[in-house]
Amino acid sequence: MIIKLNKQIGEEELEKIKSEILKNNENVRVVVNESQNEKILGIIGENKNVDVSSIQENSNVLQICKIDEPYKLANRKVHPEDTIIDFGDGDKVGADKIMMIAGPCSVESEEQIVEIAKRVKEAGATFLRGGAFKPRTSPYSFQGLKYEGLELLKKAREATGLKIVTEIMSSDDLEVFEKDVDVIQVGARNMQNFDLLKKLGKSRKPILLKRGIASTIEEWLMSAEYIMSEGNQNVILCERGIRTYEQMTRNTLDISAVPLIKKMSHLPIIIDPSHAAGIRWMVEPLSKAAVASGCDGLIIEVHNNPEKALSDGKQSITPDMYDNIVNQLKPIASAVNRVI
Amino acid sequence: MIIKLNKQIGEEELEKIKSEILKNNENVRVVVNESQNEKILGIIGENKNVDVSSIQENSNVLQICKIDEPYKLANRKVHPEDTIIDFGDGDKVGADKIMMIAGPCSVESEEQIVEIAKRVKEAGATFLRGGAFKPRTSPYSFQGLKYEGLELLKKAREATGLKIVTEIMSSDDLEVFEKDVDVIQVGARNMQNFDLLKKLGKSRKPILLKRGIASTIEEWLMSAEYIMSEGNQNVILCERGIRTYEQMTRNTLDISAVPLIKKMSHLPIIIDPSHAAGIRWMVEPLSKAAVASGCDGLIIEVHNNPEKALSDGKQSITPDMYDNIVNQLKPIASAVNRVI
Amino acid sequence: MIIKLNKQIGEEELEKIKSEILKNNENVRVVVNESQNEKILGIIGENKNVDVSSIQENSNVLQICKIDEPYKLANRKVHPEDTIIDFGDGDKVGADKIMMIAGPCSVESEEQIVEIAKRVKEAGATFLRGGAFKPRTSPYSFQGLKYEGLELLKKAREATGLKIVTEIMSSDDLEVFEKDVDVIQVGARNMQNFDLLKKLGKSRKPILLKRGIASTIEEWLMSAEYIMSEGNQNVILCERGIRTYEQMTRNTLDISAVPLIKKMSHLPIIIDPSHAAGIRWMVEPLSKAAVASGCDGLIIEVHNNPEKALSDGKQSITPDMYDNIVNQLKPIASAVNRVI
Amino acid sequence: MIIKLNKQIGEEELEKIKSEILKNNENVRVVVNESQNEKILGIIGENKNVDVSSIQENSNVLQICKIDEPYKLANRKVHPEDTIIDFGDGDKVGADKIMMIAGPCSVESEEQIVEIAKRVKEAGATFLRGGAFKPRTSPYSFQGLKYEGLELLKKAREATGLKIVTEIMSSDDLEVFEKDVDVIQVGARNMQNFDLLKKLGKSRKPILLKRGIASTIEEWLMSAEYIMSEGNQNVILCERGIRTYEQMTRNTLDISAVPLIKKMSHLPIIIDPSHAAGIRWMVEPLSKAAVASGCDGLIIEVHNNPEKALSDGKQSITPDMYDNIVNQLKPIASAVNRVI
Repeated sequence: MIIKLNKQIGEEELEKIKSEILKNNENVRVVVNESQNEKILGIIGENKNVDVSSIQENSNVLQICKIDEPYKLANRKVHPEDTIIDFGDGDKVGADKIMMIAGPCSVESEEQIVEIAKRVKEAGATFLRGGAFKPRTSPYSFQGLKYEGLELLKKAREATGLKIVTEIMSSDDLEVFEKDVDVIQVGARNMQNFDLLKKLGKSRKPILLKRGIASTIEEWLMSAEYIMSEGNQNVILCERGIRTYEQMTRNTLDISAVPLIKKMSHLPIIIDPSHAAGIRWMVEPLSKAAVASGCDGLIIEVHNNPEKALSDGKQSITPDMYDNIVNQLKPIASAVNRVI
Repeated sequence: MIIKLNKQIGEEELEKIKSEILKNNENVRVVVNESQNEKILGIIGENKNVDVSSIQENSNVLQICKIDEPYKLANRKVHPEDTIIDFGDGDKVGADKIMMIAGPCSVESEEQIVEIAKRVKEAGATFLRGGAFKPRTSPYSFQGLKYEGLELLKKAREATGLKIVTEIMSSDDLEVFEKDVDVIQVGARNMQNFDLLKKLGKSRKPILLKRGIASTIEEWLMSAEYIMSEGNQNVILCERGIRTYEQMTRNTLDISAVPLIKKMSHLPIIIDPSHAAGIRWMVEPLSKAAVASGCDGLIIEVHNNPEKALSDGKQSITPDMYDNIVNQLKPIASAVNRVI
Repeated sequence: MIIKLNKQIGEEELEKIKSEILKNNENVRVVVNESQNEKILGIIGENKNVDVSSIQENSNVLQICKIDEPYKLANRKVHPEDTIIDFGDGDKVGADKIMMIAGPCSVESEEQIVEIAKRVKEAGATFLRGGAFKPRTSPYSFQGLKYEGLELLKKAREATGLKIVTEIMSSDDLEVFEKDVDVIQVGARNMQNFDLLKKLGKSRKPILLKRGIASTIEEWLMSAEYIMSEGNQNVILCERGIRTYEQMTRNTLDISAVPLIKKMSHLPIIIDPSHAAGIRWMVEPLSKAAVASGCDGLIIEVHNNPEKALSDGKQSITPDMYDNIVNQLKPIASAVNRVI
Repeated sequence: MIIKLNKQIGEEELEKIKSEILKNNENVRVVVNESQNEKILGIIGENKNVDVSSIQENSNVLQICKIDEPYKLANRKVHPEDTIIDFGDGDKVGADKIMMIAGPCSVESEEQIVEIAKRVKEAGATFLRGGAFKPRTSPYSFQGLKYEGLELLKKAREATGLKIVTEIMSSDDLEVFEKDVDVIQVGARNMQNFDLLKKLGKSRKPILLKRGIASTIEEWLMSAEYIMSEGNQNVILCERGIRTYEQMTRNTLDISAVPLIKKMSHLPIIIDPSHAAGIRWMVEPLSKAAVASGCDGLIIEVHNNPEKALSDGKQSITPDMYDNIVNQLKPIASAVNRVI
C-alpha cells in the first residue's frame, strides 16, 4: 500500500499518520520517500489491519493506493506519469528526446577517448560512455585504466560537453564517482549486489541499472526498488540481452522488456544493442527495432579503431557507422512520436 | 559445396559431372535441385577429394561455391538475391510489400471467419489465418473443426479474395491441403517432424515454417533444408518467440532472428507477435519492432470477440485494434523502405 | 474429475451415468478408458454443475476423485500404485528390477548389432536399443538403415533374447512396428507430434516417450495423456537432458524430473545419460546419480567401435565400459532397494 | 602456460626467469602464486614467443605446462591431485569424508540456532550454516540479524563444536568475518562481484563459492580464479541449481556439474539440494543423486520449525528428516568409496 501526502505536511502530522498505520500491525514497515510534489509513504508487509478509512480523513492524505506487486516505488500505479530525469541544462532522460549514449567499451588513451567523443557528438550523441573500471570474466584480462580512465573521460567531457556514463565496480569508489561522473552505471553482474545498490540509493546521481544476464523483469525492478527505497528516484533501466540457449548471438535481446517496463513502471528504459548481439553489423537493425518498440535511449559501443580495441572490438562500430545509424533512426523515431 | 549448372544441361552431361564428383569420394552424396534459372548440385559430405578444376572446365558449370555451413540450399551464399515467392496474381512474399496475415486462432463458424476476413481485409491484410486442425497441449482441449474448418476458410476466401494460411498436423491431410490451401503452415511443435517435412518437400505449395520453441537458428534452417532438399524451394520462415526463463511473457520474441536470417539465408522471414508475447496489448509495440528490424511479414491473431474465443483469446486483438496497428506501421515500413 | 466404475458395468448403465454427467453441463466431455480392473470415466471441462451425490449412489461407481491438474490418466491421484508394465515372460518395467536398455545409436550391420547385443546381454542388459529410422538435424546425414535395420534388430533378438526398443518416425510404419518391435520409442523431437501420439494410443505396445528438448514436465505428462486417452496405458517416460544455456554438455540432465514424475504420476521413468551429456566419460557418474535418485531404468548407448560409429560416437561407450558401469551400479541400486 | 618452481627459489633467480619470459613478449603478464610445495608462475596472454627451452634449463624449474583453458590455477592440469582443505583439527574438505553442512536459512534467535546446531550435529553434520546477512530480492524482506546473527552463530559453535559457514555481502564486513567465521560463503548473486572476490583472495579463509544462477561452468571457474590469483587457494565450489525454463522446481539442479568440475579442476565441489529444488521432499532424492555422482559435500537447510521460518521455510527440512536422510546416504557414500 502507498499513501501519498501533501509535501508540506509537518513532522508531527506525519508521525500521527505513521502511528495510525503501525497500530495493531506488528509486521508492517513504513518507508518514507519524496517525489517532486508529494511525500510518499510505502507500507510494506501484511497490511490487512491498517485502518484505511481513518487515515483517509486526514487532510494531508492525497491518495491511498493498494499495490500487489512487490515493487512499490518503481510501480506505475504509484507514479502514473513517466519519470523524467532532468539534468538542469536542457538534457533530460525519459522525455521526447531519445537518450543517445555512445563511446568505447574501455577508455584507452586521451587521444582515443577525445577523438571518439568528438565524432559521436557530431553524429548526435549527448552522453559519452567509456569503461574505466572493467568487469572482466578473467582476472588476467585488461581491467581498465581505473582512476586514470576517469580523468581521461573528464577531459573528453571538457572538450565536447558530453556527459559521462561509466560503470562503478566497488562502493569504495563512490565518492569519486559522485564528484566526477554524470550517470553511474551498475553492470549486469552487479544487478543484485545489494550492498552496492543500497549505497547508490543514498546518492542523488542518476543510476543506469543494467539487467542481469538471467534476471527476470520483476527481479530487475526489485533492484531498482533497492536504490529507490534508500531515496534515489533517478533510476534508468537498461536491457542488454539475456542468456538463452541460442549461440549465434552473444545474448538474446529481449525487446519485449521495453513495452513491459513501460506498462509496469514509470522509469525510463534504454537498450544496449552492442552487448545484446555482440556483433557489429547487428547494431543497426536492433537499434531500429528498439526505437520502434518505444525505448527511451540507446547505449552503443563506438570505437575509432574496433580491430585494435582492448575489449569488445567485435561488437564496436566506427564513428561513420554510428553517424549513418543515427540518420536512419530519425524517421523511425518520428513515426513513434520521438525525436533524436 | 554447391555447383550451379546451366538449366538446359542434358541428362548425359549431368551424369558425367556427377561421376566426376563421386570419383575417389566414397563418402560424398550429390543432391540435385532446380531454381528458376539453374540446376543446382549440392555435394554433401567430405568433399576434399573432389577435383574442382576439372569440373570447372565443363561449359555447363556456371559457378562452384564452397559452403561450410550445414544448410546449403537455404544459404545465401548459394542464392545471393532474396527469394521472392510469387503467387502469380500480384501477391508476393519477400518483395517490398510486407506480407500481412491476420485472422483468428481457430476457425469457429462461418459467421465468425467470414466477418473477421472482411474486417482484416479492409484494414490491409492479404492473407487469412485460421486454425482448422489445432495442436493443443491437452487432448481434452478443443481440437479444431478439422475438414469443416477448411470448408469455412474457403468460404471466407471466396467472400474476400484473401489467401488461406492454415496448419497441417498430419501428412494424411496433405492431399486436401494441396487442393484447398494457399500457404501450408508447419507449427512450432512439428518443426523437426522430419517425416512431415520431407513429404511437404514433394509439394510445390509455399510452406510457412514456424521456429520450434527452443530451436536454434541453425536447426531451423536445417528444417527448411529438409523441405528444400526434396525440391520445394518455397519456404517462409516464421519467428514466434522462444522459450526462456522469463515468465511475464508467454515466450520471448527473438527479434535478432530477423537480421540473422536475412544475413545467412535468402528465405523470407515473418514475425508472429501474438504467440511471442501471448498478451494482447503487446502486439502493437512488437509489430513495430518487427517491421523496423526488416522482417518480410506479420502474422497476427484477430478475433471479432476475443473474450469468447475458443483458443488464445488473451492474445487476440479486435479488428479495430488491427486497423489501428496497420496504420501505425505504415510510416515505420516507409522508414525502412518497405510498403504495407 | 475421474469416476472409476466396476469393469463389468453394462452399456445401458454406463449411458445412464454419462447422461447424468452431461445434464446441465454443455461444456463437459466424457472420456472412457479401461484399466486392468476398472472402467474409468474422465470428465473434462467445467464440471461444477455435475451432480456428484446422485452419481455416487449408483452401485457401479467405485470412486470419484477431483483432479485439478490437466493430466488425468497419468496422474497418481487416479492410480496411486506404480504402473508396472508386464511383458508376460518375467520382464517388467516399473517393478524392483531396473530396466537396462543398451545398444548402438544406429543399427549399422548384422555383425555390429548382434555382437553388441551379445556383449550387453552378458553385462546385464535385458533390452536392446538401436536406431533403424534416425531423426537427424541434417537431411544429408545418415538416416538409418530403415526396414533393413529392423530386420537386423530381429536377428539380434533371436540371437540373444533381448527385447527391441527402437524409434518410430512416421505413423506409416506403425503396422510394421506393432509386429516387429517390443517397445516403440517416440523421440524428443516428436514429443508433441500429436497425430503420431494419438495413433500410438490405439496400439497396446509399450511406448517409450522421450521428453522434448525444452518441454516442461507438465507438457510431457500431457503428451503421455494423449497416448493414454486413446486407450494405451503402457507409457514409459524417458528424461534425456534439456536445453539450457550451459554449453559444456550437449544437454543438461534434469535429475529432478525423477522424483517429480514419481510424485505426480504412476508411470515409470527412465534416464538416458548418453544423450543428456553427449560425453562418453560422463555416462558412469550420471548413471549412478540416476539410480540413486530412484529412476526405473537406464538407456545407454553402447558401440563396439565408438570411433567409427555412424552417429553419436562421442557419447557411446564400449561393451567393457558398460560391463564396468553395471557392476558399479549394483550397490547403489541395492542402497535404494532396487535390483539390477 | 604455467611454470612450477622450487619453493625455495631466491628472489634474484625468480626475477631472472620472469625477465626471460617477458623478453620479446609485450602482451604477456606473469602472475606469481604459491601452493604448499611450489611457487607457480602463471603466464597470461599471447605466449608464443616465450623461449621455453631456455627456461627449462634453469634448475629451479620443476615443470612447464601449457594450458589452453582460461582458468589456470583452478585447472587440474596445474594441480593433478585433488585439493584437500585441512582445518588442522581433523576436519577436511575434499578428502574421503563428505562435508555435511546443515542449518537454517536465517539465524533467528539464540534458542533456534543452538537447538538446530545440536540436532544436526547429532545427526552427523560437522559444519553449521546460518544466514546473518541475507541477500533478499526485495528491500522490504527480512535482511538478517547481521552482526547479532554472527554472535549467535558463535554461541552455537561454542555449544557444539560445529564450524560456521555464513555468507558475506559487503567487503566492509571482511575483517569481522576473518575473525569469527570458519568458511566464508559468496552467494550466487555475487559470483561475479569481482571487487569482493579480489578482496577475499587476500584472505586465507576457505571460501565457499556458489555458482551464479545462470553462470556457465567456465565463468564459475574464472570466479574461483579471481580468488586464487590473489593468493587464496582454499576455494570450495557449490552447485545450487541453475535457472531454466522449467517452473516446477525453483531452479534446475545441474548434477553434471559434479563430474565436470572433478575432471577440469582440483577444487572440491559440494551440492545444495535445498536451493536447487526449493521443495522440502526433494532434498532426499537429490542428496542421494549428488553423493552418487561423486560430490564432496552437501549443504542442506534444516529448521526446527520450517512453517515459521523467517525465510525459505518451504525448502527447509526438520532435524528428524535430516537424521533420516544422513542414514540413507551412508550406503550410497560407501558404494562410491566415500564416508559420511
